[in-house]
Amino acid sequence: MSPRTLVADLPAHAGATVTIAGWLHRRRALKSVPFLVIRDRTGLAQVVFSAPPHPGPNTPPPSQGGVPESILSPTPDKNGHQAEMRPSCPQLGAGVDKFSDGTEIAQLSEETVVEVTGRVVANKQAPGGIEIVEATIEVLATPEKRPPFDLYRPTIPAALPTVLDNAAVALRHPELKRRHEIAARSVAAFRRALDHRGFTEVHTPKIVATSTESGANVFQLDYFGKPAYLAQSPQFFKQALVGVFERFYEVGPVFRAEPHDTARHLAQYTSLDAELGFITDHRDVMAVLRDVIAEMATAVGPEAPAVPAAIPTISYPAAQEILHSTEPDLSPEDERRLGEWALDNHNSEFLYVTGYPMTKRPFYTHPDPSAPELSNSFDLLFRGLELVTGGQRLHHHADYLAALGPEAEQYRDYLATFAHGMPPHGGFAIGLERWVARVLKVPNIRGTTLFPRDLHRLRP
Amino acid sequence: MSPRTLVADLPAHAGATVTIAGWLHRRRALKSVPFLVIRDRTGLAQVVFSAPPHPGPNTPPPSQGGVPESILSPTPDKNGHQAEMRPSCPQLGAGVDKFSDGTEIAQLSEETVVEVTGRVVANKQAPGGIEIVEATIEVLATPEKRPPFDLYRPTIPAALPTVLDNAAVALRHPELKRRHEIAARSVAAFRRALDHRGFTEVHTPKIVATSTESGANVFQLDYFGKPAYLAQSPQFFKQALVGVFERFYEVGPVFRAEPHDTARHLAQYTSLDAELGFITDHRDVMAVLRDVIAEMATAVGPEAPAVPAAIPTISYPAAQEILHSTEPDLSPEDERRLGEWALDNHNSEFLYVTGYPMTKRPFYTHPDPSAPELSNSFDLLFRGLELVTGGQRLHHHADYLAALGPEAEQYRDYLATFAHGMPPHGGFAIGLERWVARVLKVPNIRGTTLFPRDLHRLRP
Repeated sequence: MSPRTLVADLPAHAGATVTIAGWLHRRRALKSVPFLVIRDRTGLAQVVFSAPPHPGPNTPPPSQGGVPESILSPTPDKNGHQAEMRPSCPQLGAGVDKFSDGTEIAQLSEETVVEVTGRVVANKQAPGGIEIVEATIEVLATPEKRPPFDLYRPTIPAALPTVLDNAAVALRHPELKRRHEIAARSVAAFRRALDHRGFTEVHTPKIVATSTESGANVFQLDYFGKPAYLAQSPQFFKQALVGVFERFYEVGPVFRAEPHDTARHLAQYTSLDAELGFITDHRDVMAVLRDVIAEMATAVGPEAPAVPAAIPTISYPAAQEILHSTEPDLSPEDERRLGEWALDNHNSEFLYVTGYPMTKRPFYTHPDPSAPELSNSFDLLFRGLELVTGGQRLHHHADYLAALGPEAEQYRDYLATFAHGMPPHGGFAIGLERWVARVLKVPNIRGTTLFPRDLHRLRP
Repeated sequence: MSPRTLVADLPAHAGATVTIAGWLHRRRALKSVPFLVIRDRTGLAQVVFSAPPHPGPNTPPPSQGGVPESILSPTPDKNGHQAEMRPSCPQLGAGVDKFSDGTEIAQLSEETVVEVTGRVVANKQAPGGIEIVEATIEVLATPEKRPPFDLYRPTIPAALPTVLDNAAVALRHPELKRRHEIAARSVAAFRRALDHRGFTEVHTPKIVATSTESGANVFQLDYFGKPAYLAQSPQFFKQALVGVFERFYEVGPVFRAEPHDTARHLAQYTSLDAELGFITDHRDVMAVLRDVIAEMATAVGPEAPAVPAAIPTISYPAAQEILHSTEPDLSPEDERRLGEWALDNHNSEFLYVTGYPMTKRPFYTHPDPSAPELSNSFDLLFRGLELVTGGQRLHHHADYLAALGPEAEQYRDYLATFAHGMPPHGGFAIGLERWVARVLKVPNIRGTTLFPRDLHRLRP
């Protein structure tokens, strides 16, 4: 490998001769002059080949950069072949070819891995206002077959199942790759917001002896001959660790044996969990979540939604009045209408709904002391869809015994935490793939998951 | 909750009246004067109760701070009881008691969750040089039972299985908690080092259709009625994603159905994986790993080992000469001796061993072009023990077909990556729990795992 310049850094090298490396993103031969687009992790670079018969550092050809028509000029050159085999491993399938011959270059297929050396010149018509001219190319690896779809189109011209079946190639598409870069920046922002607030990062078991949230929708496995389960959430460990770290977060996989084949269900997703102790009630949790979401939105960039300094909040009973509803839970249509209400009345794409009925929340939910049939819980709606769920948890051992009744015995590890003194605490969980899908308006959550797992999909 | 001051911030509040919150770490009653140690996530604070008969903001008692003997002075006060019940939830098991009566305080058990309000005074004998005097206390939660061991001793007075069985309580011990804070800082350093070098964070499936590294030691699960497996490493996804991000990392759980019940085997551990493309060979990977380890060591703090600017490197054949060995792999004793050699000859606790025989490395390992029976792989030894394994991978499709032979068909998803053009690449994986155990010289890896999973342990 020659010293490599990243495509994004090319403008700083105008006039210089550099080497870039990447994939042959798009290949065009116009009147026999090969013109390539090279893709690396930072962007796309246009490369023009117009090698003289005997190229070399001491005989630079006249510059043809800066003029987009140059790539159309009829300067075929079939004599410039300078194949130069590098020493290669005896047993390895391919060596390295270095050449600048127009015909051969025109025959390289897309996704060929290459190094390109040439001079950087300004060209307003080229991506990034820059292109590489007088280029020579080395092939680092030759594809065995063509991609099943054109990666250079603005969107991949294939249906979602085909895209997912060929994820290793499809994810190379700049737009798909960008979604996952936004996911990475979002997670970094989640951590940064919590690190600044004294949270500790933890890693909890994904194999558990008893199913957590409910007996249904859980994957069972063979654990050294005994039955075990994949954790549906880190909920129980989270609460135990409030006793250790007070406030902490986990970024990790959770597993749901969802029997639903919908645009929003996955068998594995990345959960951003946070929990904090010594709160007054769920409103302390909501304040932390607001700041976390704001930092995540900032990380997304220009497409990010505006997060109000104080996210508007509506109580469940007040929401029912607006909706003229007496149901104990919100339907998707209810959420959509509340989203409109928040936009109309508070100019906010975000809305907190608090005080859901206790009957619709998990057993560990803390009731509202002033209205015990309602809970100190919340949902955060974003554009009329639930994005985050959270709330205050019970913290007294006796309250768990009362809430669980005869089921308490099967939760003995969990209950041990509360037998040893736990402060008031609460937390929330954000689904990473859901966050990115909603921010970027990707309709199917599979479109923001690298290698989705669902009812019908276990590979690639 | 009153506005809360963290214990670590007390020195900045000397002379002021503050409220701290935490757990009753240690309770002592000396001649009827209660003297408590309160633990919060930032440290331990000594609290002295010496309330006057009618305490109040306008009648401050004479200061008794600054003199350690003050906590021994016989000033019992049984008249100062100012129990003040706060409104509590009708169905909740415990309210909040606020009092400063010496007798009652002396009866609070360890791990009671409390808020303490009092005046901050300097006391050179107290932890952090500071203590809280004239304190009143509110009980936020009362434990149902005593901890199974004393958390205030320098080390927990119990055997490892007892500690692990009671992890939710044991992890509250400051020394155990500290290990996991060091783990968190190490992971943050891992990410920071790679973020600065253009790596993207990813999250890959933990449920896979075929076992990865080998057919053995894999957990099988029921995936909607079909067999599936827990990923032993993200290896295959890692390589596919070099084609997308070029360089990236993942921090996540990996699963090994290890039939060995040893101090260094776990059924789940946290793997810090990194992979990068467009390398010349494994030495580029080793250079990145060196910088990552250096940043992780810095994050550990004063106990951190020194990481040389260039970690000494020995080839496998040269190591064999030192060891007078002809074996194709290193025994633990061999690694120990090489660790001594590195310390004696290079004054380094770290040593790279490169060029392990191909026969002892996974099929995706790249051979050494100049000696194809050896590999472009490495181990990083730390204090005579293997800490990290890594290397260059094959990147040509034909080389995988040759390496896999008739098994190639079962790897078709994996091989698709290489059929579409892959650059030379390589990577490494660091076991987080192993890193912390070796840095802090914790003999059993279970001592650096929050809730370990092993052959015999599936809970808590």
